[in-house]
Amino acid sequence: MDHIQKTKNELSREKVFRDPVHDYVHVRDSIILDLINSREFQRLRRIKQLGTSSYTFHGAEHTRFNHSLGVYELTRRIINNFVRNYPTQEPGDGLWDDSERMVALCAALLHDIGHGPFSHTFEGIFNTNHEAITQEIITSPTTEVNQILASFDPDLPLKVAQVINKTYANQQVVQLISSQIDADRMDYLLRDAYYAGVSYGQYDLTRILRVIRPYDNKIIFDFSGMHAVEDYIVSRYQMYMQVYFHPVSRGMEEILQNLFQRAKYCYSHKADQMKFSINFLVPFLNDTWTLDDYLKLDDHLMSAYFTQWLEENDPILKDLAYRFLNRHPFKSLLVSQEDRDELMTALQKELVAKGYDPEYYLGENSSYDLPYDYFQPYKTNSQKSPIELITKNNQVVELSQVSAIVKSLAGRERGDYRLYFPREVLHAIQAADPASHDANQAKILQAHLEESNDVTYHIQQRLF
Amino acid sequence: MDHIQKTKNELSREKVFRDPVHDYVHVRDSIILDLINSREFQRLRRIKQLGTSSYTFHGAEHTRFNHSLGVYELTRRIINNFVRNYPTQEPGDGLWDDSERMVALCAALLHDIGHGPFSHTFEGIFNTNHEAITQEIITSPTTEVNQILASFDPDLPLKVAQVINKTYANQQVVQLISSQIDADRMDYLLRDAYYAGVSYGQYDLTRILRVIRPYDNKIIFDFSGMHAVEDYIVSRYQMYMQVYFHPVSRGMEEILQNLFQRAKYCYSHKADQMKFSINFLVPFLNDTWTLDDYLKLDDHLMSAYFTQWLEENDPILKDLAYRFLNRHPFKSLLVSQEDRDELMTALQKELVAKGYDPEYYLGENSSYDLPYDYFQPYKTNSQKSPIELITKNNQVVELSQVSAIVKSLAGRERGDYRLYFPREVLHAIQAADPASHDANQAKILQAHLEESNDVTYHIQQRLF
Amino acid sequence: MDHIQKTKNELSREKVFRDPVHDYVHVRDSIILDLINSREFQRLRRIKQLGTSSYTFHGAEHTRFNHSLGVYELTRRIINNFVRNYPTQEPGDGLWDDSERMVALCAALLHDIGHGPFSHTFEGIFNTNHEAITQEIITSPTTEVNQILASFDPDLPLKVAQVINKTYANQQVVQLISSQIDADRMDYLLRDAYYAGVSYGQYDLTRILRVIRPYDNKIIFDFSGMHAVEDYIVSRYQMYMQVYFHPVSRGMEEILQNLFQRAKYCYSHKADQMKFSINFLVPFLNDTWTLDDYLKLDDHLMSAYFTQWLEENDPILKDLAYRFLNRHPFKSLLVSQEDRDELMTALQKELVAKGYDPEYYLGENSSYDLPYDYFQPYKTNSQKSPIELITKNNQVVELSQVSAIVKSLAGRERGDYRLYFPREVLHAIQAADPASHDANQAKILQAHLEESNDVTYHIQQRLF
Amino acid sequence: MDHIQKTKNELSREKVFRDPVHDYVHVRDSIILDLINSREFQRLRRIKQLGTSSYTFHGAEHTRFNHSLGVYELTRRIINNFVRNYPTQEPGDGLWDDSERMVALCAALLHDIGHGPFSHTFEGIFNTNHEAITQEIITSPTTEVNQILASFDPDLPLKVAQVINKTYANQQVVQLISSQIDADRMDYLLRDAYYAGVSYGQYDLTRILRVIRPYDNKIIFDFSGMHAVEDYIVSRYQMYMQVYFHPVSRGMEEILQNLFQRAKYCYSHKADQMKFSINFLVPFLNDTWTLDDYLKLDDHLMSAYFTQWLEENDPILKDLAYRFLNRHPFKSLLVSQEDRDELMTALQKELVAKGYDPEYYLGENSSYDLPYDYFQPYKTNSQKSPIELITKNNQVVELSQVSAIVKSLAGRERGDYRLYFPREVLHAIQAADPASHDANQAKILQAHLEESNDVTYHIQQRLF
Repeated sequence: MDHIQKTKNELSREKVFRDPVHDYVHVRDSIILDLINSREFQRLRRIKQLGTSSYTFHGAEHTRFNHSLGVYELTRRIINNFVRNYPTQEPGDGLWDDSERMVALCAALLHDIGHGPFSHTFEGIFNTNHEAITQEIITSPTTEVNQILASFDPDLPLKVAQVINKTYANQQVVQLISSQIDADRMDYLLRDAYYAGVSYGQYDLTRILRVIRPYDNKIIFDFSGMHAVEDYIVSRYQMYMQVYFHPVSRGMEEILQNLFQRAKYCYSHKADQMKFSINFLVPFLNDTWTLDDYLKLDDHLMSAYFTQWLEENDPILKDLAYRFLNRHPFKSLLVSQEDRDELMTALQKELVAKGYDPEYYLGENSSYDLPYDYFQPYKTNSQKSPIELITKNNQVVELSQVSAIVKSLAGRERGDYRLYFPREVLHAIQAADPASHDANQAKILQAHLEESNDVTYHIQQRLF
Repeated sequence: MDHIQKTKNELSREKVFRDPVHDYVHVRDSIILDLINSREFQRLRRIKQLGTSSYTFHGAEHTRFNHSLGVYELTRRIINNFVRNYPTQEPGDGLWDDSERMVALCAALLHDIGHGPFSHTFEGIFNTNHEAITQEIITSPTTEVNQILASFDPDLPLKVAQVINKTYANQQVVQLISSQIDADRMDYLLRDAYYAGVSYGQYDLTRILRVIRPYDNKIIFDFSGMHAVEDYIVSRYQMYMQVYFHPVSRGMEEILQNLFQRAKYCYSHKADQMKFSINFLVPFLNDTWTLDDYLKLDDHLMSAYFTQWLEENDPILKDLAYRFLNRHPFKSLLVSQEDRDELMTALQKELVAKGYDPEYYLGENSSYDLPYDYFQPYKTNSQKSPIELITKNNQVVELSQVSAIVKSLAGRERGDYRLYFPREVLHAIQAADPASHDANQAKILQAHLEESNDVTYHIQQRLF
Repeated sequence: MDHIQKTKNELSREKVFRDPVHDYVHVRDSIILDLINSREFQRLRRIKQLGTSSYTFHGAEHTRFNHSLGVYELTRRIINNFVRNYPTQEPGDGLWDDSERMVALCAALLHDIGHGPFSHTFEGIFNTNHEAITQEIITSPTTEVNQILASFDPDLPLKVAQVINKTYANQQVVQLISSQIDADRMDYLLRDAYYAGVSYGQYDLTRILRVIRPYDNKIIFDFSGMHAVEDYIVSRYQMYMQVYFHPVSRGMEEILQNLFQRAKYCYSHKADQMKFSINFLVPFLNDTWTLDDYLKLDDHLMSAYFTQWLEENDPILKDLAYRFLNRHPFKSLLVSQEDRDELMTALQKELVAKGYDPEYYLGENSSYDLPYDYFQPYKTNSQKSPIELITKNNQVVELSQVSAIVKSLAGRERGDYRLYFPREVLHAIQAADPASHDANQAKILQAHLEESNDVTYHIQQRLF
Repeated sequence: MDHIQKTKNELSREKVFRDPVHDYVHVRDSIILDLINSREFQRLRRIKQLGTSSYTFHGAEHTRFNHSLGVYELTRRIINNFVRNYPTQEPGDGLWDDSERMVALCAALLHDIGHGPFSHTFEGIFNTNHEAITQEIITSPTTEVNQILASFDPDLPLKVAQVINKTYANQQVVQLISSQIDADRMDYLLRDAYYAGVSYGQYDLTRILRVIRPYDNKIIFDFSGMHAVEDYIVSRYQMYMQVYFHPVSRGMEEILQNLFQRAKYCYSHKADQMKFSINFLVPFLNDTWTLDDYLKLDDHLMSAYFTQWLEENDPILKDLAYRFLNRHPFKSLLVSQEDRDELMTALQKELVAKGYDPEYYLGENSSYDLPYDYFQPYKTNSQKSPIELITKNNQVVELSQVSAIVKSLAGRERGDYRLYFPREVLHAIQAADPASHDANQAKILQAHLEESNDVTYHIQQRLF
């Protein structure tokens, strides 16, 4: 049965979706409605937006479906504004060409469609790549998404894919979807803050939507909106510092990664001893997976496998699955580059002494992000274009030139480096009597625990 | 390894959870923290609060974990208020006895712990009962929840279970958790509204928390807060009308129910033809399930089975799984009791004619709720106690006596009765040419379609 | 110097005003900007929206300037929606004729321009009428408002005035500004709730704006929005019950009224004994005032006179001014029609006995409002048209036919009747020893105090 | 008559005030309720919090009454937290001594009680000082405020006054009311943002209230709350940049200042020609004013005088009053220190040429604020103590050491310097034909207009 409806593109009646962040998402084109109803897009309902963050912020259980609608809606509002105020008058005037509308809307809606379950962790283990898969979903004739796009215009799939990999000729469309201040980031800051219940992600969206404009084939902002843009940069920085990089969520990620690693080992080296099959993961263990295999994956399937693993005989697989499903994150030590090797060795010894396999019970995790990357002429490979402002008399100036706050954040990596291991091991180290202890590692670790609590250690790491 | 921490009951430092609805959830007792960390409670992270409603309101993807923390927090705030303002002075004064605190907090936190995946639908098919299971989780010595409760006080499990089945001696504790205006409802109205992105569930919580009080072994409200309580009743009514009873969500529920039914059939009657095993459901097919079996179930596991069923050979199982995973809800006709039989017959014929098995492609669904049930002396079996107000000079009056709005809603069932079937069948009926059509059923159905669009039909059904 | 700018009507750049309720107020027409900048409109900055309510809800200090911009903005949004979705195609089709746009926007902006300081109280004493004055400001060639309107179109002043007195031919324009669910009410419910800090005034504005539409020369609502309209009616009812009719605000109003009354007496009967002049009030004492005199009045001027009166020799004038400026409201007794005469007499005696002149220290105040008035054919003088809904197949139905809540509120007056007098007299009555007291009135009053605390008394009055 | 109620200090029933920012303001002490009801405090209802800002942000019409209640409420919440978590155990432990509670609450409530109408402008002309007057109101036995304080404890007035002038022995109390992150600033950022309708003033108050604590006789913050404190500093910076320093509000302030100046001139030099008396300002013209005179002043009285001046014969007084009442702000030029003299001269000539007296039609206005001033040992006169954080192991670190954002703002003055003059003169300069023009000044001014539009000029001024 064919569940995709084909209609002429304009809907007889606008369709709306109630959205907690943007109030309503408005859909006026049947192609957009068809894309939303496609199976590849509906699958995003089963993939959480923030992976393990909901283990720290219990409210943040929203999915990529939720966010993708939001990015579409913001793009739609920006374009409507462009059409009203800055429509192109003649070729080459650098203003908004509304024949790009559908390309932009589709790219906005589909920009995350290649994401799989726990993307970053999964990709590290199974060698998948959500960006490449996004392209493939859009361009492969086997997908509903591709068919819908192509039925509107045979060139549309390629165009949308080009927007997503940033090679599309009209760079305004590219920047709307992917730049330092694009519809994607604008939506996720607000949305993640809303669901997590924190205020940090809030910035003055209404004002940003007033000052954003097309200019000289780029996206640029009225100088009068400088403080609103500055505030957006600070919000972004705060969300990274306080939500996305939260050490507890990363402690869950470490467990997840080791769990996948162990599963790979078990099904590769002792498949015959496993009680349950994991049919849909087999092609990934074998590295023979196809797009169709990938599209079957989602958070729910992974979670069901974790539930099965609780009953397997392999003690490590079983234990890690238990820790993940029941939220027992690894604990962490903040570590500097100089201390790293010594601590790794000490922790490995300690883990072995306590009966843990360091391969699966010790993890490294660094979280870095450039809150704002301004133009650096010598850094030719930088893909991030700067945020620019335009004055009343058409002068263009880069944001960090006029904002001390942004300058203080610009081009500087923020984040930290941590070693992760079981909570009970940390407690044992803390409780150990250094005097009577015959092993050296506990002393080293205790010394570091003390040092890492010292604020000067933090300041040296510039981890704020 | 033992993941449950045993500590003396007061935490050295209050622990908080960021919550989008109540800002912070505050935990000061280690027993509460241990219960939250128990595997039975963590499992609630994998069970959606609103079942299929997120197919209509995409923001409403929150889980029962989320809501359970909220009910605990509201109960905690109410009790703190009682302790400050209405502590019992002598036995029998009907005020708040704070030795009940821990019973109340635990009952609040655990009131939904027996819920399984898609509870209402699942229970209809597999003969489980989430209320009985809640009792069992609390009282069975095999659960972490029971062990935590018992380690605090051996009588605690039984007390908490009694609160939940409403037989606990102190009826104030019972009413806090379960009455017409309890912490459960107070939380879910606000929470569901927040996530769905609708304003209807909002009422003046701060004021309700000021006017709620213990009196004469009951929970009662200051007369000065009458309008706030009235507004809460209207919010509740609106949430039922606009969110909980939404016809599209029910169209997804109908598919889910038929899908479970078909799975039961397939695994009972042609188990050997099935490609994939569904280990964790087998005890439910056999009706041999234990509490331990039940606790393995969650939305994710169900969803994984649905994904498997997409690849089974049974065309009905496959098709229904496809409709559910990709959100193709059944459509509905609003039907009166008198018309029901005639329409059923006509629809069955029409479905058969179109090649659908009515057993799996035709559903009945009625949604009714009493927005407010005031005391009716003759209706002795009513379990719902009335909402009462108390004046400055200690007169007690029932809410609907002083609120015309509440009176207009009181004791009146609201909801509707609908027949559900595939969207494409509805379109076929609409498109049929009655003249040339040889079957009678299309005419009947077309006539009813026309009639059910008539507003007088709606008014006769009093479906508002 | 000429402070009014004359420009062609479309502004070169849209001008926005930040608004806490609607985010931005958008102005694209120079005529609107000129009207906002006119002295008659700027004067609204000095007239509070809610009179004495800010003495109960301290946050509610906003002015009619604030609200007038809001009504304009809502009208603008509704019209934009009409133009997009329901533009007239041929004369007589009953849809929206956009040549009415400017009439509607101007009427929305100016609908309250004739308000003076503490309108309702002032009008009772000085025989002014803000509705008539609104007409006059718009039509009198002496005002800036009139000149701005006429410079755009010589007929515009008259048209706008007709909209405001409801005689304008296009009744859609009239209903937008003045009906049971118009831009005026829509704005003030939200705005007053925002500033007062209460949640009761909130309703689903976004949904109302989606379902409102022109039809058959009327304003009507999609049937699908019934619950949103119902919720608006409940919000309105709650705001009246909880904010607008608050007994404390009315206790301040009573003082104000007596203060004006006493001032009138003093300046009429013993003008030569007054220390300070009240130049701008003189024409109102003499009943010789002109529009120009009226436009000089505002809350600030009144307040300055009250400050002067603190230093006058008349003890009543002085005392009442003190009570008003320093917020010492009269207290009240809830009174039924039957008890009224007896209580009046008793109170008058009691006041005289305590040395108060009942003329200035005893007030009657009744607050009534029809929350929703549906069509009653026999009540021919009702000016309020019903709220109507339209179904998908173009059936029109009146709201209370399909909403039990609205029906419970419809056509029923709500409010109460109270006698007001000084707080210290109330205390004296409460403290009086009825036994030893030689006067009868204290007994009557004490008996009534007791009775009026009885909830059955309230129920009999149906005052909820 | 005595309007001040004397009761034992604890109220029989907690009294609450609905507040849009903090939901409820809770009052449990009769002294606090009496202070709120005092005439000096009620007078704050007639003094706007933000002076001329409501001419730019029309929503921001709130008064100092509003804000003062908020500061009290925040102080109360902080103290409650201190009592619960950090009560002093023995003298000298540096924790919270709850015997200071009433001093702190009274100081919080009364910190702004000496403010008069348009304080900053008025003080410049009439030589008053709101801080000194605050002290006097508290300590002078003639005020109700003093009597209420003294009736509770004869030493209380002096203590409260010492808190306000920062000499009080317990510096924790001082810092709660007056420091870089005190209850005053915490309230006004949120409140002003709420009323203005901007998002910039929002920061994570709930988190700040969790991490603030007494330590070593100071107020300090948990290190874990660093980002929340950082965000507060950014919010403060944004509110100054976008709201408090807005050039249009300052354009109204310039008019106000010149208006006061001209009034002073008129009543000093040609009093006999004035039509209307301004009784309550006379003592200020004569510099013979007493506290009692001062307490009669408020915004309303000033506004009434402005209304009178519209009818005076002095053309400058009349014109400036007109501009103020009807919101015709002066326009401004951004000016560097180097350019200042040349531009002043040119503008003065231009004004004279156009018939304006530069004394009253040309103003200088600079707005500077240190968003955050960290400890600078060499700057011995700095009164602002740094914001400090405390780690888990009790290390104390100054905020800017660990926050690059705060460091980028610290110790740096932000604001700008502007010359203000009538809008019509600006238009004339812009329109002037430099070629045919015989005067030099227009060329200079046009050149500067062009230069000041150049973004590099702004960057050189570092005015962001």
